Amino acid sequence: MARSNLTLLTDFYELTMMQAYFEAERKGRLQQHAVFDMFYRKNPTQSGYAIIAGVQQVVEYIEQLHFTDDDAHYLREMGMFSQAFVDYLKNFTFTGDIWAIPEGTVVFPGEPLIKVKAPIIQAQLVETALLNIINHQSLIATKASRVCYAAGNDVVLEFGLRRAQGPDAGLYGARAAIIGGCHGTSNVLAGRMFGVPVRGTHAHSWVMSHESEFDAFVKYSDLYPHDCTLLVDTYDTLRSGVPNAIRTFELMRDNGVEFQRYGIRLDSGDLAYLTKEARTMLDAAGFHTAMISASGDLDEYLIADLKAQGAKINAWGVGTHLITSGDYPSFGGVYKLTAETDPRGNWSPRLKVSDNLAKLTNPGEKRLFRFYDKETGKAKADLVMLADEKPIDEGKDITLFDPLATWKSMTLKSGEFYTRELLEPLFVGGRAVQPVRDVMQIRKYYLSEIATLWDEHKRLNKPQLFPVDLSKHLYNLKQGMLKIIKNY
Amino acid sequence: MARSNLTLLTDFYELTMMQAYFEAERKGRLQQHAVFDMFYRKNPTQSGYAIIAGVQQVVEYIEQLHFTDDDAHYLREMGMFSQAFVDYLKNFTFTGDIWAIPEGTVVFPGEPLIKVKAPIIQAQLVETALLNIINHQSLIATKASRVCYAAGNDVVLEFGLRRAQGPDAGLYGARAAIIGGCHGTSNVLAGRMFGVPVRGTHAHSWVMSHESEFDAFVKYSDLYPHDCTLLVDTYDTLRSGVPNAIRTFELMRDNGVEFQRYGIRLDSGDLAYLTKEARTMLDAAGFHTAMISASGDLDEYLIADLKAQGAKINAWGVGTHLITSGDYPSFGGVYKLTAETDPRGNWSPRLKVSDNLAKLTNPGEKRLFRFYDKETGKAKADLVMLADEKPIDEGKDITLFDPLATWKSMTLKSGEFYTRELLEPLFVGGRAVQPVRDVMQIRKYYLSEIATLWDEHKRLNKPQLFPVDLSKHLYNLKQGMLKIIKNY
Repeated sequence: MARSNLTLLTDFYELTMMQAYFEAERKGRLQQHAVFDMFYRKNPTQSGYAIIAGVQQVVEYIEQLHFTDDDAHYLREMGMFSQAFVDYLKNFTFTGDIWAIPEGTVVFPGEPLIKVKAPIIQAQLVETALLNIINHQSLIATKASRVCYAAGNDVVLEFGLRRAQGPDAGLYGARAAIIGGCHGTSNVLAGRMFGVPVRGTHAHSWVMSHESEFDAFVKYSDLYPHDCTLLVDTYDTLRSGVPNAIRTFELMRDNGVEFQRYGIRLDSGDLAYLTKEARTMLDAAGFHTAMISASGDLDEYLIADLKAQGAKINAWGVGTHLITSGDYPSFGGVYKLTAETDPRGNWSPRLKVSDNLAKLTNPGEKRLFRFYDKETGKAKADLVMLADEKPIDEGKDITLFDPLATWKSMTLKSGEFYTRELLEPLFVGGRAVQPVRDVMQIRKYYLSEIATLWDEHKRLNKPQLFPVDLSKHLYNLKQGMLKIIKNY
Repeated sequence: MARSNLTLLTDFYELTMMQAYFEAERKGRLQQHAVFDMFYRKNPTQSGYAIIAGVQQVVEYIEQLHFTDDDAHYLREMGMFSQAFVDYLKNFTFTGDIWAIPEGTVVFPGEPLIKVKAPIIQAQLVETALLNIINHQSLIATKASRVCYAAGNDVVLEFGLRRAQGPDAGLYGARAAIIGGCHGTSNVLAGRMFGVPVRGTHAHSWVMSHESEFDAFVKYSDLYPHDCTLLVDTYDTLRSGVPNAIRTFELMRDNGVEFQRYGIRLDSGDLAYLTKEARTMLDAAGFHTAMISASGDLDEYLIADLKAQGAKINAWGVGTHLITSGDYPSFGGVYKLTAETDPRGNWSPRLKVSDNLAKLTNPGEKRLFRFYDKETGKAKADLVMLADEKPIDEGKDITLFDPLATWKSMTLKSGEFYTRELLEPLFVGGRAVQPVRDVMQIRKYYLSEIATLWDEHKRLNKPQLFPVDLSKHLYNLKQGMLKIIKNY
């Protein structure tokens, strides 16, 4: 299952279009440049926001882009590509500019998350892999953020590798889950590749492969006295598992073990009832510091329900529904042309029309700003504007309006807000310009980010929409282009 | 995003358990051997069956298993593993036996899909990756099978790479989609790695980056006269797109192009209405052989609906919902201990208890047979039996019974049925024993496999359950073990 590089990880039509652009240039057309925005239209599941993740893998993807001789040979053999084009591919490198919102940032529908400005032949190639990477990791980071929100101050562990959609989904899904707030993963390779905490205990098979449950627990505690979580639901949780765990902890106590991380895990049954009973039993035996972990078909909704019912759970192992974003398994990021050069080399904006109002794109090269309330530090609104318009003057009041309901507006008073530009340079002239950020650092940044969002936007169900507004210039450009297109 | 090997792609608890088995052996316990079954409990989505896929990647995974010095170093640094254990890992290889049902076979809940018989320390390591690989590819192959069933004799293309859960999910998802009946994929790397047909045309950006839609179409047709599918919904499908496509085809006809693969693609709007109108327009212009392709949020249910409404679509490009199995994004395969050696080296069966009747495992090492009707060649029932019981005698009548409702039975008359053993040796003594099968060959085998299933089991909604029965010996063993466990 080795893959030397991902250059061919692209939809075939990117290559047919590339050859067409290549031929146009061969016939004398000036090299055509373009700007593409990657954005999404709808938050996954019922979320009021998303968390962007995967930018580092986009950097790695762009940096490794090259067609090997074997790739070129394969393409030539397909019968649709000229030798001249295939020779061009052999020397292909990415020379353009890319901006991206930093990983771990809270983002909203309609905002450019990534902006690619490059010769169109290059910008077109990277579309598919860029979407694949960002769509996947942002999906899982968003789900993780919701699961952690439901779990409050409890520990959340990512346990989904066996149900992930292939090795990468497990590996990069674990990375994204940590970025979205999880405290650790069961995935050892993720731990090694990304330097994130790895956790786990034993399986039912461990208990089944011993003469008795107690024997299995004691053997395990002998070997791992300082990280000893015992799985108590192999036979009967309350009549066998918890009593045997307590006997084991008593034996450890008698042997003078200094308890560090220890406790029990439940993987089945009514987790509210069972954990309350187990807590009582553990406390009665003096093991107040024993942790209770739970796993088994958990998601943010079930965690919130169990907590509401007083379940005594300190750590949540979340598998299938986190690693696949079970109720909403795809992030609908798209990559749309927003500006390009004409045959004389002049830039002009582009717009994708649609009968569906929400599917209209925003034309032109853009910048993206977030407005914060100075007093609370909370995010108030985002503003998408054209790259060449006058910058925001924080010394003046500013009025923002809803682009779908222009009569709705809000005025921010000078002195009461500050702004931050969200899109940061990632590649300049084909060179990556950002230092690699450690995943645990990104997680820390995420925690500060999510704290800028009011709870209203974080509610699991029917959250309040966060305003993403267009500048007046951008709004007017869009309306003007729509009129022209619809009349012609 | 390169990964040299997947040995660490495992849950942490596999390693903690391995060290525990390693320590037991060091203290003089005879090497413990075990049998694990990989099986699943419930068909994905509303399916009446599943299609197994991913076996070849399991072979590759097992063959590449080895802990590098860096892996060993990483594990040692975690602080939970002894130097002796880490040294053991450096020399780790898999020496056991594995049986698997061939990829592309129709399978059902409760059947062993893969059987691993090996020293338990080895069998435990491979659990997570094996589940990850088989769960993913079987999920997508099953979804593809349903999508292709809905599409009847039409062409189905896998278009989901940009929405797949990471690069592997796109790559191996495309492989699985082809195994499950798809005719091709847009994924170029999948085409190259697996030798499967690759398809695609152009994007909206191609149209948007030309002076006019007609200009874009003509340029495209000049370059690809023999594989010319024009995307007609960038501006207005019926008033602009289809008329411009027809003008382009007329120009091609005037220029003497010999039409091969050509036609239009729609990616939005009411596909039933629009394709019927488009078909009429194409036919009126004499382009009866022009194909109409459709894409955009399709799944098996929408395809069936559109066909019921008379949509004129020859080829279906299915993306998001196929590559993620959108309505059911995980395949619940599990890996359970069924037999192991005791401290004297004698085998005994193992059973995982559960209050949930459906979650009980079947104990003992097993074999799996399928019964076919001699006259029709259709599958009638599957039988799970113990490995050491007397083989089926096709010369005698045989009575099968439902293990959850034992009064329901069916008798197959000698001479009217034949059987086939489904589990085939994959590894013997650590060596892979099956030739690598070409993906297009597996697809061909799948087509013959799915033809053995009555339509009743293939219905998209509420399909008839296929009988998976237990032999009398296995049934009695299970009941006997349950009694002992419940009494103790």
